[in-house]
Amino acid sequence: MEGHRKEEKTSFVQSLADPGHPVKCSPVIIDNVPLNGPTLNVLMSENFIHQSMSIIVEDAIKKATDVREKVCEWRSPEQLKELLDLELRDGAESESEILQRFKDAIRYSVKTSECLKCNELRSEHEDNTLGKWLPELLWYTYEVAPVFTLVEEAVLKKMMELIGWKDGGDGIFNAGGSMSNMYAVNLARYRCCPDIKENGLSAAPHLVMFTSQECHYSISKAAALLGIGTKNVYAIPSDERGKMIPSALEEQILSAKSEGAVPFMVNATAGTTVLGAFDPIDEIADICEKHNLWLHVDVTDSVAWNPHKMLMACLQCSAFMVRDKTSLLQRCHSARASYLFQQDKFYDVSYDTGDKSVQCSRKPDAFKIWLMWKALGSRELEQRVDRALAMARYLAQEIKQREGFRLLMEPEYANICFWYIPPSLRNLPDGPDVPSLLLQVAPVIKERMMKKGSMMVGYQPHGEKANFFRMIIISPQVSRQDMDFVLDEIHNLGKDL
Amino acid sequence: MEGHRKEEKTSFVQSLADPGHPVKCSPVIIDNVPLNGPTLNVLMSENFIHQSMSIIVEDAIKKATDVREKVCEWRSPEQLKELLDLELRDGAESESEILQRFKDAIRYSVKTSECLKCNELRSEHEDNTLGKWLPELLWYTYEVAPVFTLVEEAVLKKMMELIGWKDGGDGIFNAGGSMSNMYAVNLARYRCCPDIKENGLSAAPHLVMFTSQECHYSISKAAALLGIGTKNVYAIPSDERGKMIPSALEEQILSAKSEGAVPFMVNATAGTTVLGAFDPIDEIADICEKHNLWLHVDVTDSVAWNPHKMLMACLQCSAFMVRDKTSLLQRCHSARASYLFQQDKFYDVSYDTGDKSVQCSRKPDAFKIWLMWKALGSRELEQRVDRALAMARYLAQEIKQREGFRLLMEPEYANICFWYIPPSLRNLPDGPDVPSLLLQVAPVIKERMMKKGSMMVGYQPHGEKANFFRMIIISPQVSRQDMDFVLDEIHNLGKDL
Repeated sequence: MEGHRKEEKTSFVQSLADPGHPVKCSPVIIDNVPLNGPTLNVLMSENFIHQSMSIIVEDAIKKATDVREKVCEWRSPEQLKELLDLELRDGAESESEILQRFKDAIRYSVKTSECLKCNELRSEHEDNTLGKWLPELLWYTYEVAPVFTLVEEAVLKKMMELIGWKDGGDGIFNAGGSMSNMYAVNLARYRCCPDIKENGLSAAPHLVMFTSQECHYSISKAAALLGIGTKNVYAIPSDERGKMIPSALEEQILSAKSEGAVPFMVNATAGTTVLGAFDPIDEIADICEKHNLWLHVDVTDSVAWNPHKMLMACLQCSAFMVRDKTSLLQRCHSARASYLFQQDKFYDVSYDTGDKSVQCSRKPDAFKIWLMWKALGSRELEQRVDRALAMARYLAQEIKQREGFRLLMEPEYANICFWYIPPSLRNLPDGPDVPSLLLQVAPVIKERMMKKGSMMVGYQPHGEKANFFRMIIISPQVSRQDMDFVLDEIHNLGKDL
Repeated sequence: MEGHRKEEKTSFVQSLADPGHPVKCSPVIIDNVPLNGPTLNVLMSENFIHQSMSIIVEDAIKKATDVREKVCEWRSPEQLKELLDLELRDGAESESEILQRFKDAIRYSVKTSECLKCNELRSEHEDNTLGKWLPELLWYTYEVAPVFTLVEEAVLKKMMELIGWKDGGDGIFNAGGSMSNMYAVNLARYRCCPDIKENGLSAAPHLVMFTSQECHYSISKAAALLGIGTKNVYAIPSDERGKMIPSALEEQILSAKSEGAVPFMVNATAGTTVLGAFDPIDEIADICEKHNLWLHVDVTDSVAWNPHKMLMACLQCSAFMVRDKTSLLQRCHSARASYLFQQDKFYDVSYDTGDKSVQCSRKPDAFKIWLMWKALGSRELEQRVDRALAMARYLAQEIKQREGFRLLMEPEYANICFWYIPPSLRNLPDGPDVPSLLLQVAPVIKERMMKKGSMMVGYQPHGEKANFFRMIIISPQVSRQDMDFVLDEIHNLGKDL
């Protein structure tokens, strides 16, 4: 599969890296990852930006306003797949290849400056151009967005492959991870009680679901919106590390059943919001299998994966994937609007994927991660994640070594949680007042950093623990000096407290 | 309020209009609106695009990667309101003013190349730059998006003023109109039975809602997702024009009540999807008042308004507005995540509007319509709508005059529905075969136009009516010749059928 790739060409990554760029400092090796400063050359990036902007103006905007241009260069899904080379590979493509892919995407997209929905014709024109680019186009059927339909399919396929779903599955990109989690709750419910779609919950049994107390708040929002009720989300205790305790999960499932409730879903979290903890998914999966519950996040049933986070794709870029191959997603969400999803079209209407969504028009978010993946390759994406995680561990090491800083716990992921203890509080005997004094430190330092504009690091309390800072490192471009700067600056801003 | 506006300056609209641009044909006056060709100069627009791109590169991208730049220039909500001049007025601003507003928006936004969420610091850098612009920034609290928070507030205020809500209300921009309609259903339910948020629907009465049979399919999707059930959405019959029949609504409300169901909401439609019909909102409002039901779309309770449609803002740009002033939106949707919505912040946390949304991060869509409104002014926006509606009536006139074309009904809005009858079917006696023959005409013409790439006009059946074409005219840039071209081209593509 990699055979036809011309490895001798300069890749996009190589062309952006400047070999003459001075290394800021001698490298530190953390878990075999050298940390010695940014790897990209800003000037080279700027040149690339200008070239892509010029493609947008010439190919997307000007041609869309030129009446001599076709509205679309129609290709069937099969033809277009061959023309586009959608596969995502290990290696990076060259800068010129990436620009060509961008041109191709525009070429085979429908050119009407966004007013596709109005069935408008060739002379469409828009003067509100700020923020009007390819990913601004809306999308619900293959005919209005042939390129993006296939790109979404290719990205989902690759993501499911990485998750390890050898037989594939189904999926859709959504307006954010909260929406993806809502999809999971809705599909789990639909599998459990398909009648609810038509008959509603008032005729249904008392449904309950389970998630760790550390889960993202979108689970609670989903339960409220979907009519399940936040009280019917059982918060399973976590251990001191933030991981769901499997025995506690099983206890609560049994207890709910004994009270006549019907458990339908467990939500597991791979990287909790605050502590960056991973629930023990294997053990939870065994419990779900035993009780026939839908497990979200897990390889069993469904996954919400946001490439706009650790993979740094542009916002928003959030995929919901389901292992099911019986059109559950379509059956659960479809409304079959006759004005969009006509069945007498001249192409394979299974490519009209819009009815799988609870939105009507939506943005082709998959294109952002697709083009980025083409430009960087799987290998570089992996290295970026490795580098960010190594950087997180470097920061943790520094926190442990510096006076006045205290690590909340060893990082499992990219989240580093820590306190800064100003000199005036360092030598106090432990007592009831210390936590309340410490509580006031982070908000003051945060206010000072915001007003100075030097950086933005968030803080929060967590259970019994007073306000602590939380750094999450996902960018491949942060350097060791940046990490040192964070700690120096917090000290500078708070040393008089 | 208009006093300080320098009306002698060349407005954005004037600077884009080229007085020397040849008028394509002598004007036709439709309802006092002259229709004589596009009003904008593409070359002038291009120059504007280049200037705004250069601001994006210099101010947003390069400064975000420059460690000497501040992460943000912190201003309190009150200070920032004074600096930005957020008000939307009748007149258009000059091109240079619009560019300055764009610069200001960047200046007072947080500069970290999107990674605000990760509490990252100054050296953030991203090489996936295609499609990365200001409206790509995510958003949930004032501190991460001060400009966009205030812009959203200003746009919602103006929109509520135009709706006629003199006392204001509350609102939020969403990922599309389907989401806005879901918000309406959820708020209506919450007002009726606030316990459902916690306890779920299984403990609730049998809730039912009402909408016309012509409503958008998102109402049905909302009922399914929210656990209300699609069978509990009563489809009220419409008259031959597509308008909900108020007496039928009241009959069904009474009938539902007599069966023990609890009506909680009526959805009225102002401009139906297919026929562009307006439900008789005044009469429906009277019925809702009588039965204490939430009326969505109406001035009574809530409105979903998509500036990405008739106002041509970039997708997506969809506002949900509610007349309530008791924080219903916040109470209904809040989850109070401690890592985002800390209450011990140093500014007025009522500006942290993110918890009103069912999404977590969301895009600052209000900025698109705000900047467009500043550039065009209310007057020009109104004229554009008038022009599009006049163009729709021109097309209807032409259809009535041309042989082989038949208008489904007189347009009430921008939707023009019509059949093309090929010569071979024109002289057939009316009989059972004619509709089935006609059914096949539109799909064939559509396939031919797609493969030729000349235009995109949709078709669909509706009730008893065979496949007809549906044009929706919203662009101010379409010309009479374009309308003529649509009809000529349909004839050319279908005359041999």
